[in-house]
Formats: sequence, C-alpha cells, structure tokens
Amino acid sequence: MAWDVERTKQLLLDAATEEFSRYGLAGSRIDRIAEKAGVNKERSYQYFGKKDEFFGIVLERELAAVMNAVSLTGSGVEAVVDYAGRCFDYQVQHPELARLTFWEGLERDEPTALDFRSAGADNKVVRLRAALPGLGEEDARELLMTILTLCDGWQVLANMDRVYTGTVARDPQRNKRRRRSVLLAIEAYTRSLIAGD
Amino acid sequence: MAWDVERTKQLLLDAATEEFSRYGLAGSRIDRIAEKAGVNKERSYQYFGKKDEFFGIVLERELAAVMNAVSLTGSGVEAVVDYAGRCFDYQVQHPELARLTFWEGLERDEPTALDFRSAGADNKVVRLRAALPGLGEEDARELLMTILTLCDGWQVLANMDRVYTGTVARDPQRNKRRRRSVLLAIEAYTRSLIAGD
Repeated sequence: MAWDVERTKQLLLDAATEEFSRYGLAGSRIDRIAEKAGVNKERSYQYFGKKDEFFGIVLERELAAVMNAVSLTGSGVEAVVDYAGRCFDYQVQHPELARLTFWEGLERDEPTALDFRSAGADNKVVRLRAALPGLGEEDARELLMTILTLCDGWQVLANMDRVYTGTVARDPQRNKRRRRSVLLAIEAYTRSLIAGD
Repeated sequence: MAWDVERTKQLLLDAATEEFSRYGLAGSRIDRIAEKAGVNKERSYQYFGKKDEFFGIVLERELAAVMNAVSLTGSGVEAVVDYAGRCFDYQVQHPELARLTFWEGLERDEPTALDFRSAGADNKVVRLRAALPGLGEEDARELLMTILTLCDGWQVLANMDRVYTGTVARDPQRNKRRRRSVLLAIEAYTRSLIAGD
C-alpha cells in the first residue's frame, strides 16, 4: 500500500505543479488538481493541506530541483557567465518555475519556505565569492538577484518582448538572441563589480 | 451631465487600477470595482466592456502615463543611466504598473494594445540610438528590455529579495542599494554594447 501512497502523492504533485503554474494561487482549484491526478480531493487535503500550503510545497519542490540541477562551479568571470547561461537554459526548459516565482511575488506577502531558500541563497553566495575572490558579500547578493531577475523575468515577459521586438513567445531564434544579451549584461556587470574593488 | 459621465468613468478607472493591480485579471471582480467606485456595475460594462477589455484599458492607461512621465533625454552613457534611474524611481512610486505588467505576462497569451505599445517602444529605440550613435537597433531593443526587466522585476520580486538579502519589502535603504546595483549593471552593459561596435 505504501507504493500507492507515494504514487498518489506524485500524481497530485505533478497535477498541482501544472495547475499552480498556470493559474497561480488564487486561481487554482484543489478539485481540478485532484481531477487531473485522478485522485479523490480529500486525499489532496490529507497529504498536502490547504491550497496555500500546497502551493508552498510545490514551489519549494521546484526550487529544490533547480538548486540540484544548476550550480556554480569553476572560477573567474567565465564561471559566473556559464552559471548564468545554465540558469537561463533551465528556466527555458522549466517555465513553470519562473511562473510560480512570479505568482508568489504577486500573490503572497511573505516568502514560502524562507529558511530552506535562504540556506540555498547563502550557499550560492559562498560559491560565487569563491569563484570571484575579492567580490564583497553585498555585491554577490546583488549579482545573484540580477541573474535571477533577468533569467526568470524572460519567461513571463513574452508580451513585453513582443512589444519591443515583434517576436512571439517561445521563438527559438529570439530565445538564443536574448540569451546572448542577458549573458553579455551579466558579464559586463560582473567585470565592473570586480574592477570596482 | 457630461461632467457626471467623466467623473463616473474616472472613479471606475481608479478603482479598477487598484483592483487589477492587486488581484490580476482572473482574480478581479467587476462588482467589487463598481462597489469601490460607488457606481452601478452596469455602468462599468457600458463604459469599459467586459473584464478582459477593462483590464486592457487600465494597463494601456498606466503605460501611457509612464511614457509621458519618463523619457530619454540628452546623450551618452550617462543619459541612458539617468533614464534607467528614472524608470526605477517611477516603478517604485507606481508599483501598480509593474504588477499589471506581470499579471498580463502570466495571464494573457497576447499583449493588449500592441500597436500603441509598439509605437512607444519604437520611439524609445529612436531616442536611445540618438543618445548613443553607433548602437545597433537590435542592441537598443535588448538594452530597453533589460532596463524594463530589472526595474519592473524589482517591484514583484520582494519575496526573492527577502530570501537573498534578508530585507523585507519596501525598505527604503534596501531600495536605494538595489537602485545603485541596477544602474551599475545597466551602465556596464551599455558600455560593453558601445565598445562592441
């Protein structure tokens, strides 16, 4: 029976990720999640609590996935640019993460899973400063916020990009071009932080 | 009577800006807008159409306001940085604009008021290239998207900033610090675009 519980949880989590990513917190419905998962909705409440809690669980799970998949290795400005490029690519491949992040930004006054996320952020700061000796802690945090804003933002500003460049969302050529620009901006900014020491 | 119609429209527009900015498109309710405005909801439908149309009208009005308030003047990298700083300040003073922009990004597959906005974007491209002779048109569009992403994004990523820096939303000192970082990133990126010619 344990297998069934795990499988039921997995089905609910996958359906919830799709639902919350698409409709956000207020717009999502537990009964639609349960229906998509083919599970009774009482199970959903039993395993994941109320909608607000479930949203937090889904976001935390997606954040854990990106932390595992993308990490800063190596040293020098090139390592930072390489890291930013992999952040960009991850967001392109998993647009639901950026969507969840911005839904949370718009719909919640407090971050979910603050301790878990802060530990992840602190770890990135340590790695970034190891890659760029001389980079101050404050500057490291600013640089990480900048990488995150540009990579995540790209996934949810397709309408604005259409206004500015005329291209429709998810055009692979446009994506490639934007990736180059984001990395150029990050490289230039990183060099200026190092030079400013 | 004309005065009453204009006044009624104004009351509805103000209430709708607050409502849509707070709850987004799906989460907003025309009857709540009408109640806040102290106006019969049939009037709202009569003047501004269905919720989707009304959302578009509100967003277009806010975009027209920022276009009038913030424009690129002067020349050189300093002028671009100055422009980005005023974009940042405008967003801080009018957080509803960034919120509407991101709600649209999350909730609509097509941009509202595309022709109007594209004309505004083209105008900015012309001014930017006049300020930085030698800047290519594509690079100008990338630079504008970057300024926009960093300035607008800051308004809706307060939870993420709490994770990265520990500060709560709308802390004036944090705001000042982030403004410096965004402008440093824009300056470095702009210089690298010019140098790359």
